[in-house]
Amino acid sequence: MSGYPPQEGTRSIYLDYAAATPVAPEVLSAMLPYMSEIFYNPSSPYALARKAKADYEDARSRLARAIGAKPDNVVICAGATEANNLALNVSDAKILVPATEHESVLAAAEAKGCSILPVHRDGLLDMDAFQRALTPEVGLVSISLANGEIGAIQPMREIAEIVEAERRRRLSAGENVPLYLHTDASQAANALAINVASLHVDMLTLSAAKIYGPKQVGLLWAADGIALRPLLRGGGQESGVRSGTENVAGAVGFAEALELATANRAKEAKREMRLRNLLQKRLLAAFPWAVVSGPKKDKLRLPGLLHISYPGLEARRLVILLEQEGVSVGTGSACAASRMQTSHVLSAIGATPEVAAGSLRITLGAPTTEEDIEKAAELISAAVTTEAERIGMDPLTGEVDR
Amino acid sequence: MSGYPPQEGTRSIYLDYAAATPVAPEVLSAMLPYMSEIFYNPSSPYALARKAKADYEDARSRLARAIGAKPDNVVICAGATEANNLALNVSDAKILVPATEHESVLAAAEAKGCSILPVHRDGLLDMDAFQRALTPEVGLVSISLANGEIGAIQPMREIAEIVEAERRRRLSAGENVPLYLHTDASQAANALAINVASLHVDMLTLSAAKIYGPKQVGLLWAADGIALRPLLRGGGQESGVRSGTENVAGAVGFAEALELATANRAKEAKREMRLRNLLQKRLLAAFPWAVVSGPKKDKLRLPGLLHISYPGLEARRLVILLEQEGVSVGTGSACAASRMQTSHVLSAIGATPEVAAGSLRITLGAPTTEEDIEKAAELISAAVTTEAERIGMDPLTGEVDR
Repeated sequence: MSGYPPQEGTRSIYLDYAAATPVAPEVLSAMLPYMSEIFYNPSSPYALARKAKADYEDARSRLARAIGAKPDNVVICAGATEANNLALNVSDAKILVPATEHESVLAAAEAKGCSILPVHRDGLLDMDAFQRALTPEVGLVSISLANGEIGAIQPMREIAEIVEAERRRRLSAGENVPLYLHTDASQAANALAINVASLHVDMLTLSAAKIYGPKQVGLLWAADGIALRPLLRGGGQESGVRSGTENVAGAVGFAEALELATANRAKEAKREMRLRNLLQKRLLAAFPWAVVSGPKKDKLRLPGLLHISYPGLEARRLVILLEQEGVSVGTGSACAASRMQTSHVLSAIGATPEVAAGSLRITLGAPTTEEDIEKAAELISAAVTTEAERIGMDPLTGEVDR
Repeated sequence: MSGYPPQEGTRSIYLDYAAATPVAPEVLSAMLPYMSEIFYNPSSPYALARKAKADYEDARSRLARAIGAKPDNVVICAGATEANNLALNVSDAKILVPATEHESVLAAAEAKGCSILPVHRDGLLDMDAFQRALTPEVGLVSISLANGEIGAIQPMREIAEIVEAERRRRLSAGENVPLYLHTDASQAANALAINVASLHVDMLTLSAAKIYGPKQVGLLWAADGIALRPLLRGGGQESGVRSGTENVAGAVGFAEALELATANRAKEAKREMRLRNLLQKRLLAAFPWAVVSGPKKDKLRLPGLLHISYPGLEARRLVILLEQEGVSVGTGSACAASRMQTSHVLSAIGATPEVAAGSLRITLGAPTTEEDIEKAAELISAAVTTEAERIGMDPLTGEVDR
């Protein structure tokens, strides 16, 4: 039986930062004035409201600056799901998306008509297949910068070059289907530089909720000349692209969070990579038969993410054993977990049903300490041993003796 | 010159509660735990996340209970604009909306194809025109319970009876275009009973931001059997109707705010009506030539709202004079104000350009005191006198002597 908060004497170890991050104290402090004294509607005509409007626009400028963009190109909206849906609404032409994309990209693409791109077994895009799929009728390519489940970091520069080559081909052939490249960088922003010019993309999604900011706050950046088509119509806020009274508190918190993420990024990514590699080493030493998914090279995998499978075991049972010890880990993306489906990401990389069913997604965050990792390694190992023994599996070999 | 905060020695008097309400202290207290310790993704599989999920669903139940509904029929979303857009997305058949609707309803309806219904000079729906417009191809009627600019409270029961009669006619004629009635009750919830059964509507929108709750949090209630079509696709939250990681803090704050609104409603509506009528009396005594818009009868006009025009004066200049004295009032809906357009609501009721240009929308809230009202009456009168004299108008008659 597990209560909330965890049993006394047990320090809670949260290792699912890819699913949700706590709001950083600095972020909450920045937001609070806008939930009390500066509550005014930014569209109202008097001085107090103009202050709220000015602070909101300042937040937009800060967000833009953090990604190397102009403020006018940033649409603030209610989370990454909305930003992705808005991006994919840009055209009615065919959309290309990798099979490993987030549900919000896949579902929005499927509703509009898309082709699914294959990935390699490590989750990296199959570039040959991509090139073949990039036919003249494609209007939009949407590829996340980093995958939130297995951590694969896509070669966005190379992808952008292929898109650019196709654009040049269309231009010289006199074809007039515009072609856009969108990236959902929500899962990448704590670890990777997010600069729209360096990434050579046309649209980019970010989420406050993944970078120690508030939930249901996100942004879509779109390059000059891209005519976004609104999903929510009304008062004409966000230059008519996204109506609804502005969430000033959310925007200010998001700006604070993104600046913190940018400032801490290099150091924190290095720190998390060291801790993640320590955890991986510990867990593979204990169970050499465990399967780590995602790219092998450190620079191609999100530094704070470890996707590890124990084929033959049930991840759900491991999660329950671990939560009793105060350790919270995911089994995949939170969305898929709640629907009790096999992860579409693991299907896409060709994982066997046994690997998929025995998968833990462990993600580290800013509050994670080395002590947490050592303790988590112990407790995960104990849980795996308990589960293995329960079903008559040798914990050292992963073989079932029956 | 006006600074922020208002000049020392001047108590700030905010009278634009229809544009934005401060977050009630109880609401903020209820939200804070979900912005710090209980930050988990409700879709995650471990105990801590299940607690967040349970609290989110509890908030949904509280919201549902407050409007006499079942929790499963409540979709929590990012504000009234989204809720209205979601409601209007329910069908592709023709939509009927009054000319005085909120921009989010008008714009969403116009994007899908609609007819605009006329209203009388007091803002109440022209029922004869409505009956004539309710032709066999109409699929949805969307009429706000109360107008946020001039305060007209629509006869929703009577409207629902007309809709029901048309449904019966279609049934007996073997016609199969479904017909739904939606109401945006965002501006009504502080003053009027919001019970979906008593209102006899099929869909209902509420906003947390108008009832001392957080911004960009709202709900759409839809009756059994209505198949809402998602605007935002993805992880399948909100039964697939509205994807995106749940805003637990926002939902909990919304539930707290709606319960407070429900508990305080009768008393507060009475109190605000008394203060509004006092303000109206004072201002009409000072300037008998001023024009009050909206229904004459108290029970047909939002109790905390006074729409008053000074034909010949410029409302914008009055707003500036008043903000210098620490009084914040609106000139119409915040959205229209920011676009510097003549209010579509005033156009719809046939207001002259002079009346429209000289309009103040004054809205009272829970923090408004009788002292505020007496002081505001004085300061508004002084501002009107100043402006009148500046342009050579006799403040007592409203006549320009030249």
